[in-house]
Amino acid sequence: MPFIWPSRVRFADTDASQRIHFTAMLRHFEAAEIEFLRSLGLLRKDASVSAVNFPRVHVECTYTSMVQYDDLLNIAVRVERVGNSSYKLAFEAKVEERLVAQGFVTVVCVDTSSGRARPLPPELAEALKKSREAEGE
Amino acid sequence: MPFIWPSRVRFADTDASQRIHFTAMLRHFEAAEIEFLRSLGLLRKDASVSAVNFPRVHVECTYTSMVQYDDLLNIAVRVERVGNSSYKLAFEAKVEERLVAQGFVTVVCVDTSSGRARPLPPELAEALKKSREAEGE
Amino acid sequence: MPFIWPSRVRFADTDASQRIHFTAMLRHFEAAEIEFLRSLGLLRKDASVSAVNFPRVHVECTYTSMVQYDDLLNIAVRVERVGNSSYKLAFEAKVEERLVAQGFVTVVCVDTSSGRARPLPPELAEALKKSREAEGE
Amino acid sequence: MPFIWPSRVRFADTDASQRIHFTAMLRHFEAAEIEFLRSLGLLRKDASVSAVNFPRVHVECTYTSMVQYDDLLNIAVRVERVGNSSYKLAFEAKVEERLVAQGFVTVVCVDTSSGRARPLPPELAEALKKSREAEGE
Repeated sequence: MPFIWPSRVRFADTDASQRIHFTAMLRHFEAAEIEFLRSLGLLRKDASVSAVNFPRVHVECTYTSMVQYDDLLNIAVRVERVGNSSYKLAFEAKVEERLVAQGFVTVVCVDTSSGRARPLPPELAEALKKSREAEGE
Repeated sequence: MPFIWPSRVRFADTDASQRIHFTAMLRHFEAAEIEFLRSLGLLRKDASVSAVNFPRVHVECTYTSMVQYDDLLNIAVRVERVGNSSYKLAFEAKVEERLVAQGFVTVVCVDTSSGRARPLPPELAEALKKSREAEGE
Repeated sequence: MPFIWPSRVRFADTDASQRIHFTAMLRHFEAAEIEFLRSLGLLRKDASVSAVNFPRVHVECTYTSMVQYDDLLNIAVRVERVGNSSYKLAFEAKVEERLVAQGFVTVVCVDTSSGRARPLPPELAEALKKSREAEGE
Repeated sequence: MPFIWPSRVRFADTDASQRIHFTAMLRHFEAAEIEFLRSLGLLRKDASVSAVNFPRVHVECTYTSMVQYDDLLNIAVRVERVGNSSYKLAFEAKVEERLVAQGFVTVVCVDTSSGRARPLPPELAEALKKSREAEGE
């Protein structure tokens, strides 16, 4: 029932330990976030040039099992919290049935010109809240 | 008829010019190369730990048009040349019908322990040659 | 008094928001970690091929201020905790006097062949503990 | 006599082959390019938001020897060609005395709003030409 985005671990994602580099997992989470927002009808294609911007203010990730080149990550995304000017997403990555990483990203909405936090666009806040409720939380 | 791999430009692929960073295009080419080899039945999953290794010895890319966040690259891959111990692939990336990048990658087969070039595994050389012929070159 | 590593934000570190990409900050933390370990005489050059390996099991970062292309990060590193088979480092990045990011990385020592946690090498554990004490914590 | 920029290979630069990933070399070239331009008094800090922009239109690199984690690259940069609206730089990376990579990058000056090529800013063109002559070419 949750949104799940499949994302393939590429050779460029690995490091000399022959595992995925820890930052590469976060790039896969980012791809999953974008596709999750797209699934809600919230395409952010023009975010970078619009009046509002969505920087991350907090990121965390726990790595629970080894991930290697060419593994297929299945990344579940759900809405953890919707605030006035920020939202928090939860990510859970599995390789087959094995949990490999769990993380959270907190995104704040800022006014591009002033750089200060501002309320989330209403359609974004609403869609995220609906998604959160639909998951029965 | 050529092999084409669709690959989405992610936010992490962009830079402050609001275009794709030039190195990110080459990571998309790498993904296309892997999928091309998979399509030929040549899964390289264990390459990193096996007796042979496949470093790049030459890479080049011409960027012909602007690529932005969330653009969908369609990357055509074809075999340009198959040598004794190396092969060369050609890449052509389009966004819709617009050509955005063209590149070449030359990969050499090396013995992992000695670090020296050695002949391509026969099944790899044959499959690449067949693919090259199938394209009528 | 704490160890500080200066690290320049590169164009490849930025994204289309014209700020540093959040994962790039973590790569700068990694460079600071390596140089911190080098300063303690713990060069990890051969880590990747040795009998032990040091994957990250937890990473977190709070981004408190905007970072742009060519900013010079000054990254303070200190030892937060030394366990039996893991250690935790704290990072604080400033641009001039402005705090821009704070993070933590927890690294576990694993046996390369079994993939299981094992005690930290004694010289590593000792040097980290000494560094922690020297900071008066 | 040529400009040389020392740049350390980081763990994030490596891949599962236990060498530098081929795209990481190009990121080190980019750092060397920026520092080369800085040495000529051509700080490009504001390039991303100014009226002109400098995308790469061609990149190539030949990898001649193995590069590993923590190797110190010494990257020589010189001006290969200065055109009306573009310039080409040559890069040569060594680890100690061993040549490990040679590459070229062609950068074009474009008008940010129209996206079309335009003449190089005169101070940039002049400084690059002077540098080229100083190398006796």
